[in-house]
Amino acid sequence: MSSGAFYEDLVVGDSFITTGRTITEADLVIHAGHTGDFYPHHMDAEFAKSTPYGARIAHGTLTFAVAVGMKSMNINPNTMTYGFDHLRFPGAVRIGDTIRVKVTISKVEDHPKNPGVGRFSEHVEVLNQRSETVMVFEHIGLITRRHPQKS
Amino acid sequence: MSSGAFYEDLVVGDSFITTGRTITEADLVIHAGHTGDFYPHHMDAEFAKSTPYGARIAHGTLTFAVAVGMKSMNINPNTMTYGFDHLRFPGAVRIGDTIRVKVTISKVEDHPKNPGVGRFSEHVEVLNQRSETVMVFEHIGLITRRHPQKS
Amino acid sequence: MSSGAFYEDLVVGDSFITTGRTITEADLVIHAGHTGDFYPHHMDAEFAKSTPYGARIAHGTLTFAVAVGMKSMNINPNTMTYGFDHLRFPGAVRIGDTIRVKVTISKVEDHPKNPGVGRFSEHVEVLNQRSETVMVFEHIGLITRRHPQKS
Amino acid sequence: MSSGAFYEDLVVGDSFITTGRTITEADLVIHAGHTGDFYPHHMDAEFAKSTPYGARIAHGTLTFAVAVGMKSMNINPNTMTYGFDHLRFPGAVRIGDTIRVKVTISKVEDHPKNPGVGRFSEHVEVLNQRSETVMVFEHIGLITRRHPQKS
Amino acid sequence: MSSGAFYEDLVVGDSFITTGRTITEADLVIHAGHTGDFYPHHMDAEFAKSTPYGARIAHGTLTFAVAVGMKSMNINPNTMTYGFDHLRFPGAVRIGDTIRVKVTISKVEDHPKNPGVGRFSEHVEVLNQRSETVMVFEHIGLITRRHPQKS
Amino acid sequence: MSSGAFYEDLVVGDSFITTGRTITEADLVIHAGHTGDFYPHHMDAEFAKSTPYGARIAHGTLTFAVAVGMKSMNINPNTMTYGFDHLRFPGAVRIGDTIRVKVTISKVEDHPKNPGVGRFSEHVEVLNQRSETVMVFEHIGLITRRHPQKS
Repeated sequence: MSSGAFYEDLVVGDSFITTGRTITEADLVIHAGHTGDFYPHHMDAEFAKSTPYGARIAHGTLTFAVAVGMKSMNINPNTMTYGFDHLRFPGAVRIGDTIRVKVTISKVEDHPKNPGVGRFSEHVEVLNQRSETVMVFEHIGLITRRHPQKS
Repeated sequence: MSSGAFYEDLVVGDSFITTGRTITEADLVIHAGHTGDFYPHHMDAEFAKSTPYGARIAHGTLTFAVAVGMKSMNINPNTMTYGFDHLRFPGAVRIGDTIRVKVTISKVEDHPKNPGVGRFSEHVEVLNQRSETVMVFEHIGLITRRHPQKS
Repeated sequence: MSSGAFYEDLVVGDSFITTGRTITEADLVIHAGHTGDFYPHHMDAEFAKSTPYGARIAHGTLTFAVAVGMKSMNINPNTMTYGFDHLRFPGAVRIGDTIRVKVTISKVEDHPKNPGVGRFSEHVEVLNQRSETVMVFEHIGLITRRHPQKS
Repeated sequence: MSSGAFYEDLVVGDSFITTGRTITEADLVIHAGHTGDFYPHHMDAEFAKSTPYGARIAHGTLTFAVAVGMKSMNINPNTMTYGFDHLRFPGAVRIGDTIRVKVTISKVEDHPKNPGVGRFSEHVEVLNQRSETVMVFEHIGLITRRHPQKS
Repeated sequence: MSSGAFYEDLVVGDSFITTGRTITEADLVIHAGHTGDFYPHHMDAEFAKSTPYGARIAHGTLTFAVAVGMKSMNINPNTMTYGFDHLRFPGAVRIGDTIRVKVTISKVEDHPKNPGVGRFSEHVEVLNQRSETVMVFEHIGLITRRHPQKS
Repeated sequence: MSSGAFYEDLVVGDSFITTGRTITEADLVIHAGHTGDFYPHHMDAEFAKSTPYGARIAHGTLTFAVAVGMKSMNINPNTMTYGFDHLRFPGAVRIGDTIRVKVTISKVEDHPKNPGVGRFSEHVEVLNQRSETVMVFEHIGLITRRHPQKS
């Protein structure tokens, strides 16, 4: 959505796709250090040879947090996160893969209690350089209304 | 769960709680840089004065990724993540808050297709220094069976 | 400028201002580590008491690089940097100050040799929370033409 | 200049060259995160294949800030930065390139208002492992006088 | 030692070995930035070709600090560090090497003055993926007694 | 020692002291992430209230690695580290403390096997802003001889 959008501007089905970002070995090291998750699947190249992937793969939380960051570069201060649902990882992200994030508005609705904001859902897909889906999740957000709802 | 546990060792209702970690201004800066999420709610102390929280708060993705990291310090190489559900943020994490993570096994079941592993769910609560719940989510994992299932 | 803009879309005098970012002690530590510049004006709180500022101040290169980053969040892949001129620091950035970046297009011109791109200049001002100018510089960029110039 | 030098010690034409530093993929990731500049020229290996460089290149602000850091390792607390002029990038810095910084004093002059300090300019060249110049700039600094100027 | 162990639980000769961690180029960059140690043996790929190792090697302080971190993932809040002795580096750690840490309790003794704690020594070996010892050191720690010593 | 010094230039008793560096909360966060050492003495402000120090203190490995970095800013490519002995921590480093490093050459001797280098020891003291010694250690290094030893 454009950076100054309000509730009234959202249309179900609207979508955008971000520019790409290559996930590097440095990202895995930084994520491990930031979170404390040093699982050998992500940090131990020898161990990783014995896994089905045959190499280190990105933490699921890394792919998720970076995807949220990528879709947030066009800052819209009218929005806030309410929650996330159904995080799944149909593919692995390997060091050197380049991901893009596709965001589609899937629901727009009144907020049950707060007349100043509305609620929206985004279906988010993380795609690699071969356009394979490596992660999906739903983002539920709150967004200011241009014209507060009458009670 | 203990670091060498297998499927057969899991018991619904078992729980543990981590040691604490203080969320610092540095964590917000590192998370913004790692993900690219520079939303002013997290990065702009002046803007934040105008929000309901009155001050910068941690990114939801920060609290989530750090909580997963905190519960992963006791590495069990027999486990892998399948997905996460229902991430919600009943409270805000402010700079200087100290969080702990409480993990409770909520489900243990056969894997529908793979006889070598089982599936488990953990209910995860993130608590602050006043024992208020600031985040909840469900973690779904896969874990190796000590004795593969007979078909 | 909007993220898909071409040469033909640029208008001298057009300007925009970014959202804010609070410069933290963590930013100074990260900048020192990234660059190797551990000058005591930025890193030694005791020494800094003896300077005219009375406290640690941000590296000039920090303010500059972060300002360029702030104005680059709305990615326009049609543009590239050619150079920068006249970096000056009329004010100091202290830990805790919040900066915004104001960008004004100051020149748009044909490229002397390359008919596929044009050249533009931006006058960039870095403002603190009291709207004082703490840094200025000129950014010279190249931008793809929608319609290549005829020779 | 040596680390305890004063105004009176500076000689136009004096120069030094630093030891080398290899610019790594990690440096690009850290710089993007520190500044918020995630332009695909630096962060997207797939996009970069389509550019004239054929691969990711370092941010101009990275090369500049690291070069200033490299020439600042020998700390002289008697000096401060006044400004920088004419930053140009005659060559690209690729991941794996090793840069050194050559600094030549180009001007030494009285300060127009402050009798306790003098002003000096340094011509700074950033060289890669093939001794190609990849960046140039002028650094203007202030330096304490051993003997304050008489009025 | 297990994470809730007390003085009374320690047995000379007990040992454990950690999971592995691959030392990356990013680790060298982060360590240099964190400490300010930009020696060309670690940071300059061209210079490193001229050394006996023929390539960049990890800082000794990096291997040491990471090894202490690796052996500390299983947090035991009953312990504290008193000192370290005899740090030696029989082998080099190259970028891409994977290290594990083997810890053996070598001494358990009363504290000369404090009846509430005991003192223990650990012999620590850092091994690479070929099981070569690349570093050794002695760690001297203090640990709470379950039953304070009678005077 | 000066940055181009050889074995023949070393004199027992010579000493120097570095400029200062303030240890910040960001340094503790970065060190924990770099090493994986998230002990609550360093990372949990609530737990730390219950310790004798009453507040979070720097990791011993942090103070050590930063001190080695501080004394290494004046790069002498003729030297290499052989080992470290007797690391002790007579005082705690709290967030906000400013440390300097005093280095005194304590021994200079032939290398038993290698005629091209000599061996030297440095006694290293880390001092805080009240000139209290918070850490000591011995550094043993190797240094190239200007004139190789005759056999």
